[in-house]
Amino acid sequence: MTSIRDGKAATDNAFLRNCWQVAAFANELDVAFLARRILNEPLILFRAGNGDVAALEDRCPHRLVPLSSGHRVGDALQCAYHGTVVAADGSCTKIPGQSSIPRNSATRAYPALDRYGLIWVWMGAPDLADANLVPDLRWLSHPEWVSSTFYMHFEADYRLVTDNLLDLSHETYIHQSTIGNREEESIADFRVTLAHEADRRIFCRREMSNIEPPPMWSATCPMADRIDRLQIASYVAPGINMTEAGYRIAGETTEYNVFLRVMHLLTPETEHSTHYFSASSRNYALRDAALTSAITDGTIRTFKEDKYILELQQRALFECPDQHVPKMSIVLDAGPIQGRRLLTAAIAREQADPTYVAPPLSLVRELDHLGSERAQVQA
Amino acid sequence: MTSIRDGKAATDNAFLRNCWQVAAFANELDVAFLARRILNEPLILFRAGNGDVAALEDRCPHRLVPLSSGHRVGDALQCAYHGTVVAADGSCTKIPGQSSIPRNSATRAYPALDRYGLIWVWMGAPDLADANLVPDLRWLSHPEWVSSTFYMHFEADYRLVTDNLLDLSHETYIHQSTIGNREEESIADFRVTLAHEADRRIFCRREMSNIEPPPMWSATCPMADRIDRLQIASYVAPGINMTEAGYRIAGETTEYNVFLRVMHLLTPETEHSTHYFSASSRNYALRDAALTSAITDGTIRTFKEDKYILELQQRALFECPDQHVPKMSIVLDAGPIQGRRLLTAAIAREQADPTYVAPPLSLVRELDHLGSERAQVQA
Amino acid sequence: MTSIRDGKAATDNAFLRNCWQVAAFANELDVAFLARRILNEPLILFRAGNGDVAALEDRCPHRLVPLSSGHRVGDALQCAYHGTVVAADGSCTKIPGQSSIPRNSATRAYPALDRYGLIWVWMGAPDLADANLVPDLRWLSHPEWVSSTFYMHFEADYRLVTDNLLDLSHETYIHQSTIGNREEESIADFRVTLAHEADRRIFCRREMSNIEPPPMWSATCPMADRIDRLQIASYVAPGINMTEAGYRIAGETTEYNVFLRVMHLLTPETEHSTHYFSASSRNYALRDAALTSAITDGTIRTFKEDKYILELQQRALFECPDQHVPKMSIVLDAGPIQGRRLLTAAIAREQADPTYVAPPLSLVRELDHLGSERAQVQA
Repeated sequence: MTSIRDGKAATDNAFLRNCWQVAAFANELDVAFLARRILNEPLILFRAGNGDVAALEDRCPHRLVPLSSGHRVGDALQCAYHGTVVAADGSCTKIPGQSSIPRNSATRAYPALDRYGLIWVWMGAPDLADANLVPDLRWLSHPEWVSSTFYMHFEADYRLVTDNLLDLSHETYIHQSTIGNREEESIADFRVTLAHEADRRIFCRREMSNIEPPPMWSATCPMADRIDRLQIASYVAPGINMTEAGYRIAGETTEYNVFLRVMHLLTPETEHSTHYFSASSRNYALRDAALTSAITDGTIRTFKEDKYILELQQRALFECPDQHVPKMSIVLDAGPIQGRRLLTAAIAREQADPTYVAPPLSLVRELDHLGSERAQVQA
Repeated sequence: MTSIRDGKAATDNAFLRNCWQVAAFANELDVAFLARRILNEPLILFRAGNGDVAALEDRCPHRLVPLSSGHRVGDALQCAYHGTVVAADGSCTKIPGQSSIPRNSATRAYPALDRYGLIWVWMGAPDLADANLVPDLRWLSHPEWVSSTFYMHFEADYRLVTDNLLDLSHETYIHQSTIGNREEESIADFRVTLAHEADRRIFCRREMSNIEPPPMWSATCPMADRIDRLQIASYVAPGINMTEAGYRIAGETTEYNVFLRVMHLLTPETEHSTHYFSASSRNYALRDAALTSAITDGTIRTFKEDKYILELQQRALFECPDQHVPKMSIVLDAGPIQGRRLLTAAIAREQADPTYVAPPLSLVRELDHLGSERAQVQA
Repeated sequence: MTSIRDGKAATDNAFLRNCWQVAAFANELDVAFLARRILNEPLILFRAGNGDVAALEDRCPHRLVPLSSGHRVGDALQCAYHGTVVAADGSCTKIPGQSSIPRNSATRAYPALDRYGLIWVWMGAPDLADANLVPDLRWLSHPEWVSSTFYMHFEADYRLVTDNLLDLSHETYIHQSTIGNREEESIADFRVTLAHEADRRIFCRREMSNIEPPPMWSATCPMADRIDRLQIASYVAPGINMTEAGYRIAGETTEYNVFLRVMHLLTPETEHSTHYFSASSRNYALRDAALTSAITDGTIRTFKEDKYILELQQRALFECPDQHVPKMSIVLDAGPIQGRRLLTAAIAREQADPTYVAPPLSLVRELDHLGSERAQVQA
C-alpha cells in the first residue's frame, strides 16, 4: 500500500485512486505525446504504433527532467538532457555511454486505455486495474449518437464542480442567458426527487411543468413557448457526472424528449484544479454539423459562466479552509451533500483497504430502469 | 470577545478595531456596491435607498461565493450562484426553493456611516460602535472649505506610512521636485517640537526660517523667493494623519498663512497594504477649480514618490522581519517612534480589554489651542 | 562565527563562503552602481574614484530601504528616503538633522576587488579575505588572448549547472544544432578520464577520435569533415568551471589545437538561481572581431539550450526535494558525482571550522601538466 501513496499523505483524502479516470480526449493523442498533471502527479501520455496508450510519470529516471521536454523515438521517449530512453511500459531501454541498465531505472507506468473516444488512466494500484471497470458510456462512440465535445480547465476543486452539477437550481442565477429560467419561474421552485444507491451513485430528478424553455434551447431548436422541462443529474464517484435535459409539450405527450445527454467527466489536476471533459450527446439529427457546433458553442458559453463563479468560490475557500462545508445548509443542498457523503465514504474505504475496488456502475442501465425518457426523441 | 478575533490571532496585534476607520470616499458608493478588503476581511459596502450605508462580509452565507459577484436587489444583495438574498443588516431574506430561513444564516454586518464625505466602518465589537466617536474632520464638508481628494493603494504596512508622515524631513530627499527643499536648505536642519498627549495623539511642529519655498508651492501659488515655512504633522491612532503646511514672509507678518491642511486617512487592507484616502483642504479661493485640480495633481505626484520608496521598504522588511524596528535610531525618528509607541499601547490595551474604546480626540480643537495659524489665510 | 551565518541556517549548507566569487564583469561597474543578490544577500557594488571596488549590503542602516534606490554622492551612497550617507567602507558619514553618528550605524561591507576584468567578492568572514586567493584566470586579461564574454541568469541551482558541465555527453542531446554530435556519433560513446585532487579540483578529459565536428565549430571556423575531438572539463569548488575544446586532424598531428577555453563562472544568487559569467577565450586571430562576435552569439545560443533544460529540472526538483540525488546513477554521472562530493566536503569543512580557507588552486598550471594542448593553436 505504500507504493500508491508515497509522499502524498497531505492530499490523499481528496482523491479516489482505484478507478478509471479520464486523462484526455482520444484525439489529444494525435500528436507525439501529451503532458498533463493528474491527481497532483505529472504524467506523459502517448499512443504507441499498435494503438495502445501509454501513461508514464513525466520525469526521467535519471535526473528528473520532464520526459515531455524530449521527443518520441518510435514507441518510446528519449530524454532531452542525456538521451535516456524510456519505453511505453516504463522500462529504461537505453542509457548512453553504457550497455547495462540499472535495476532501479524504471519509470512509473500507469494503466491506460482508449475507450469511447476517451483516454482513461488508473492512478491507483496498477495490479488492480481491470478494463471491465471502465464506466459504461457507450453512446459516446455509438454510430446512432453524435456528441459535441470540448475540454475546459477549472481552477477549482473537482468536488465544487460536482456540487454545482448536483444542484441545477443555480441555472436560474448563473445561466439566465443560456440554460436558465427567469427568476419568476425559478428552477428552485420545482422539487427534486433524489435517489441514491450502491454507495456510489446518485440521481436527482426534477420536472418543471409549464414553464418557458431556456434561451439556449429556443435558440438551438424551435420549441413551444411553454414546456414541461425535465432534468436528471446523475453522479458516480469520483467524477462521472451526467445531466439529461428533456422536455414535453404540455398536454401533447406524457413522455419526455431527451434533448441532450451531457457528460461532465471531472478529473482532478490538483486538489484545487480540475480537468473538465464535456460531451453533449444526442441520437437525432446526426448529420446536422451546424447543430453540433451550436451545441458546442452554447455549452462552452454556459460552462464559462460556471467557471467564473466556481473559481471565485475556490478563492474564497482558500481563505476559509475551516468553512469548506457550507456554513448554512439549505433544501437545495440535498444532492450536493449526498454526493459528498458518497465520495468521502468511498475514499475512506479505499484508504482503509487499498486493495478495495468498487464494482462497476452504469449510469445508463439505471436510467433506463427509471423511465422511458430516451424512447422518444426528435426525428 | 471571541467574535472579534476568530481566526485572526496571527495578525491581530497589527490592528486597532474598536474605532471608526475610513472605508471609502462617499462618492465611491454612487454605484451598486463596492468590494474592499479591510483589516484582512473582505467587505462589501453599499448605500441603501434611504441613504444609510451598509457594510457586510463579502461572502454568501450559503457557499461563500463573494456577494460582490452578484447584484443589488433593492436594498439587498443577491448571490450570483444560487440566488440567496442578504439584506443590509446581514439577515438572509430569501433562499430559493424553501420558505424558511435557517437560524445560522446571518452574514456579518459591520457598523458603517457616512460623514464628511467619507464612509466610516467599525471593525471591532459592533455593540461598542458609537457615531459620536467618529473623528472630527468637519472642515472636509464645511461650506467655507474646499478639498482636493483622491484614493491611493500602497503595498506597504500602514505603520510605515505613518512613520513617513511623522518625519517630514524626507521631503528634502524623496520630494525634491514637489514639496521638498534643496539639500543645501535641508528640512532636517530645522528642529521639530514634539507634543503628545492622551496616549493617542501627537503633534510635530517645525518652523523653517528664511528658506526657498518648495517647487510645487511656487508652481501652485505665486510666492516670495524666501519664506518662513511651517509644518505641523499630527497623528491620532490608528490611522488619522494631518499635515498642515503654512508660511509667512519674513519680516512682513508674525503669523503663518496655512496654505493647505492635508489629511492622510490610512486604513489597513492587510498587515502590509494600505488604503490611503487623501484630502487637501483650504478655506480660500473656494471657487478656483483650476487650483483644486492643481493641488490634486501635485499631491498625487508627491504621494507616488512616497509610494515608490515605502513599497521598496516593505519588500525589504519581508526579508528582515526581525529588523522591523530600525537598526539605527536617529534624532529625526522621534516622531515616528512616539507614534509607534502610542499605537502599540492602544492595541495592547484593546487586546487586554476588548470592550475598551478610546474617547474621541479632535485634531482641530487641539491645534486651535496650539496657535492661531489658521487665523490668517489668503483671500 | 555568528556574524557569517546569522539567520541563514536554512540555506547555509548550499554555499561556500570563504572564497572569492564573481559578482560582475568589471564593465558592469561603468555606471553609478549595480544592485545584485549574491548568496541570498542583497548587495550594491560600485567603483570608487580611485578605482577600488566597494560591495555593501544593499540596505540603508536607518530603515532598510535599498541603497540602490538612492544615488551616488562622490565615493558614497545616499539613501533615497532620509538622506543617510554610507561610505565605500560601510561607515555612515552623514545623518541629516544631527552631527553625531551612532555606533551601530555601519553597513556590512564585503571585501571586493577587480581582477581579470571580473569583480570578485568575498561573502565569508571579511578578515580572512586575501587577494592572493583569487583563482588564477590570467588569460582573461592577457594581451595575447581575447575573450567573448556575456552574463546569463539561470533559474536553477548552481550545482545543477556544474553537474551539467561535468558531463558533456549532454551535448549530443541538448546541443545537436550547436556544439553536439549526431546521436550516431554520440559523445557518450567515448570514455572520460577523470582526475581529481586537492579535494577541490576535478578534470574530466574525453578524446573522440574520427568524428564529425559539431555544427557550430564548422560554422565558426572551416574544418575537416572528420576530426579527433578533445574536451577537458575542469572544476574548482564552489563555482569555477572551465571547458577546453580542442581538435586535431586524424593522421596529421598528434597534438590538439585548443579551439576555445570556455570559463563558466557560477555564483549563486539564491539556492535555486545562478549568476552565470561566461568567457570563451582564444590566443589566435586576436583582431578578428567578427570571430569574437560569432563565438559570443553561438555560445549564447548554446547556453540558452542548457538554461531551458536546467530550469525545467529545477522546477521538477521543487516537487521532489527528497530526490535531489538522482534516483538512478549512470556511468556518465562519474564527473558530476565527484564534483558534488568535493563541494559538499568543502562546505562541511568550512561549517565545522569557519576560519578555514582552502589554499589557492590554479586550473591553468594543472592543465599544463596534463598535456601540451595549448602549444598548438591556429595562426
